[in-house]
Amino acid sequence: MGARIPVDEHAAFVRSLLAGLGARPTERVALADALGRITASPVESPIALPPFRNSQMDGFAVRSADVMDAPVSLPVVGEIAAAPGVPAPLEPGTAVRIMTGAPVPDGADAVVPVEDTEEVGGDVTGVLILHPRAVGEYVREAGSDLEAGSDVLPAGLRLASRHLAAAAASGLAEVLVRERVRVAVVSTGSELVPLGTPLGQGEIPDANGVALAAAVRAAGAVVVHGGRVRDDVDRLRAELDTAREAGAELVITSGGVSKGAFEVVRELLEPAGGWVGSVAMQPGGPQATGAYRGVPVIGFPGNPVSAQLSFELFVAPSLRAIAGLPPAATERLELAEPLTSVAGRRQFLRGRRTDDGRAGVVGGPGSHLVAALAASDLLIVVPEDVTELDAGAVVDTVLL
Amino acid sequence: MGARIPVDEHAAFVRSLLAGLGARPTERVALADALGRITASPVESPIALPPFRNSQMDGFAVRSADVMDAPVSLPVVGEIAAAPGVPAPLEPGTAVRIMTGAPVPDGADAVVPVEDTEEVGGDVTGVLILHPRAVGEYVREAGSDLEAGSDVLPAGLRLASRHLAAAAASGLAEVLVRERVRVAVVSTGSELVPLGTPLGQGEIPDANGVALAAAVRAAGAVVVHGGRVRDDVDRLRAELDTAREAGAELVITSGGVSKGAFEVVRELLEPAGGWVGSVAMQPGGPQATGAYRGVPVIGFPGNPVSAQLSFELFVAPSLRAIAGLPPAATERLELAEPLTSVAGRRQFLRGRRTDDGRAGVVGGPGSHLVAALAASDLLIVVPEDVTELDAGAVVDTVLL
Repeated sequence: MGARIPVDEHAAFVRSLLAGLGARPTERVALADALGRITASPVESPIALPPFRNSQMDGFAVRSADVMDAPVSLPVVGEIAAAPGVPAPLEPGTAVRIMTGAPVPDGADAVVPVEDTEEVGGDVTGVLILHPRAVGEYVREAGSDLEAGSDVLPAGLRLASRHLAAAAASGLAEVLVRERVRVAVVSTGSELVPLGTPLGQGEIPDANGVALAAAVRAAGAVVVHGGRVRDDVDRLRAELDTAREAGAELVITSGGVSKGAFEVVRELLEPAGGWVGSVAMQPGGPQATGAYRGVPVIGFPGNPVSAQLSFELFVAPSLRAIAGLPPAATERLELAEPLTSVAGRRQFLRGRRTDDGRAGVVGGPGSHLVAALAASDLLIVVPEDVTELDAGAVVDTVLL
Repeated sequence: MGARIPVDEHAAFVRSLLAGLGARPTERVALADALGRITASPVESPIALPPFRNSQMDGFAVRSADVMDAPVSLPVVGEIAAAPGVPAPLEPGTAVRIMTGAPVPDGADAVVPVEDTEEVGGDVTGVLILHPRAVGEYVREAGSDLEAGSDVLPAGLRLASRHLAAAAASGLAEVLVRERVRVAVVSTGSELVPLGTPLGQGEIPDANGVALAAAVRAAGAVVVHGGRVRDDVDRLRAELDTAREAGAELVITSGGVSKGAFEVVRELLEPAGGWVGSVAMQPGGPQATGAYRGVPVIGFPGNPVSAQLSFELFVAPSLRAIAGLPPAATERLELAEPLTSVAGRRQFLRGRRTDDGRAGVVGGPGSHLVAALAASDLLIVVPEDVTELDAGAVVDTVLL
C-alpha cells in the first residue's frame, strides 16, 4: 500500500521527469503561423530598418539650405510616391512633392509637411515654404530603427503580433522557433465510451480524452495522439506504441492507478520500474510516473476532477514554462465560509470568488464533482496540517 | 485637411461601428475544438452526474446494518469492476469487492475502503470489516453532482478544459458556441512586396498583412481573407469583393488614408460617405472609417507601428469583448526618464518596464520604429495637454 508521498515531493519528481523536454528541437515556421511560438535563437534582420531614407510626412522634399530664409517660394519639379524605383536627385533651388514613406531623393535633406506650405500657381507649379527647416527634419534615415545584420528579436521570445510586425518589416518570411512539446493523451477504463454514445448500464463518457487534450493545448503543447483503451495492459501497450509512432514525447494517462484489481497503468509501469502510489492530496491521491520504451508517462486518476487538478499541479507548470507562458496566478483570499479538511493531505477545494472578493467553496471535496469544478474559478489550498478553518481565515488560492 | 478629432471620440465611433458584430450567429462545434470558444446558450446535461450510484473507493460494498457491530467478518461473494453491466444485488450478510467508480449494487448502502479491512481466508474468501459504516459512506449517489436536465455550463462562458470536462462527462459531444468574428486584412501600397521577396529600390515588405492578421487572431477573431493591393482603387474594390465572398464581417485596411496623392482607402470610402481624417494622436494620426457594400471598413495608416497601435486602441477592445477575453491591462507607473510630447495630441510612446518597475522609453516617438515597438512591453500614454514630463512623474501605461 505504501505511505503517501508529499505533494511537493511528487511535483518535484514529475518536474525532473519533464526537464528533458525543455531542450527543444527547432523548426522554421512561416510568420503567418508563428503567433504564440517561442523564438529558438535571436532573429537577425538582413536589412536596415527603414531599408531606405524616406519621408515621415506628406509634403515637399527640399534642401534645408534653400529654405533657411523662409518664407521662400520654390518650383515644384515633380512628385515622389511610396512606390518602387529610385527618384531623380533633387536639383538645388527646387522642391519635389513627396508622400509619407516615399524615398527622399539624393540632394534633399529635409521634408516640409504640406500643412506648413502654401500653393503657388494654380496647378501647384510652385510651393511657398513658410518656415526654415533643419537638416534631417521629417526624414527617416535608413537604419535609424535598426542596422542591417542586427537582431530584431531576441531568443526565447513568445511571439506577439508586434514582434511579427518587426520580423516581417525586416523582410523575413519565416522564423526559427522551438518545437512544441508533443503529447499523447490516453484514457483507460472499460467503463468508458466515446462522447455522444448513448450510455449503457455502468458506462460513462470518456471526459478525460477531450478535457486533458484541451488542458495540454492551453499549456502551449500539442496533442499528437489521443486514445482510449479498456482495462487490458496489452491494449494499453499497443496504444502507447501508436503514440510513440505519432512522435509523442510525453504520455499522459488517466485511470488505472488505483488499488483495485484492474489497474492497467500500474500493470504497465510497475514491472518497468515505474512508480504507482499515493500522493498526500485530495482529490488526486493515486498517481503514477514512469516510462514506456523511453517515453515518460505521467498517470493520473480516472475521475475528471482529479485528472484536471493533477494536470494543473504537476504537468502544466513544466509545459507552460517551456511554452513561455506565465505560471498560474495565485492569490491569498479570505474564506467566505468555514471549512474542514482531512489531516495529512493537502486539500484542493474547488471555489469561487464571491462578489465581495472572498473565496467561497463550490460543491465540497468529492473528486466526482465535475459540474462543481466547472462552476469554480479557483482552488482553495488547505495545508496538510490544517483540519479546520473559520470564515475569514486567509488561504492560498490558485486561479483557474 | 480638417481638424483633428479626439482619440476618445474616434474610439467611440469605431466601437459603435463594431457594435453590430456583438450579436453573434451560433454554430455547433465538437468539444475537441471548443477550447476558448464562448457558449451561446446554457449547456444542459442530458444525464445525471454521476449517472449511476458508484463507489468512491476501492474496497467492499456492504449493508451498513451488517457492519454496525464491527469488527465483523463477512463472506466476499464477488467483485464489481468499473465496467459496463449491472451488478447482482447484494444479499444481506455478505460483502462484494468493489473498485472506485464501479456501480454500487442494489442492497448495498455503504462502501468500506480496503485499508479499513483485513483479509479472512487465504484467497480473500472473506473480509474483516474493522469499523462500523453509516448509510451512504463512500457512496456517490446518482445526481449528487448534477441532476439530469440541469445546466452544466452557463451561456457566455469562455470554455477552459475544466468546462469541457464537465460537458464531456455529461455525455455531450458538441456544444453550441458563438461564431468568431470573421475579419479580412488588406494591405494597400504600391511599395509593398510579399514577405521573403528580395527588395528592389523603394520597396518594403508587407509587414501589416501578417502582423494585423496575428493581432486579429490574438483578439479572438478569425481571419477569413488576407490581401495586398497596389495604389489602385479598382484593385482595392476587387479585393474587398473577394473578402465579402469569403464571409468577412469586418475589413481592416492599412495604408491609403493620408493626405498624399495616392490614397486608395480615401478614394474608396469618401465617395461612399466614409470618413478619412486625422485623430489627435501620435503615432497613428491618419484614420478612416466607413463601409464597403455593407461591410464595415476600418482603415489604419500604413506603417506597422501605427497600424498595430491603432488596432490595439480602436478595434481590439471590441473584438476581445465579443470573444470573452479581458481588456488589455493598464498600470500607472513612474517614468524612468523625462520626456517631451506634442501639444494637442495624445502620445503613445513605446516603453519597457525597467528592473526597478518604472516605465522607460524605447526608441522615441517616430512611427517608423517597428524594431523599437518589438522591444517594448508597454505603451506610455501622454495626454493631449502635456508637453513635458519629469522622471518620476506617474503616467498611465497600457501593457502589451
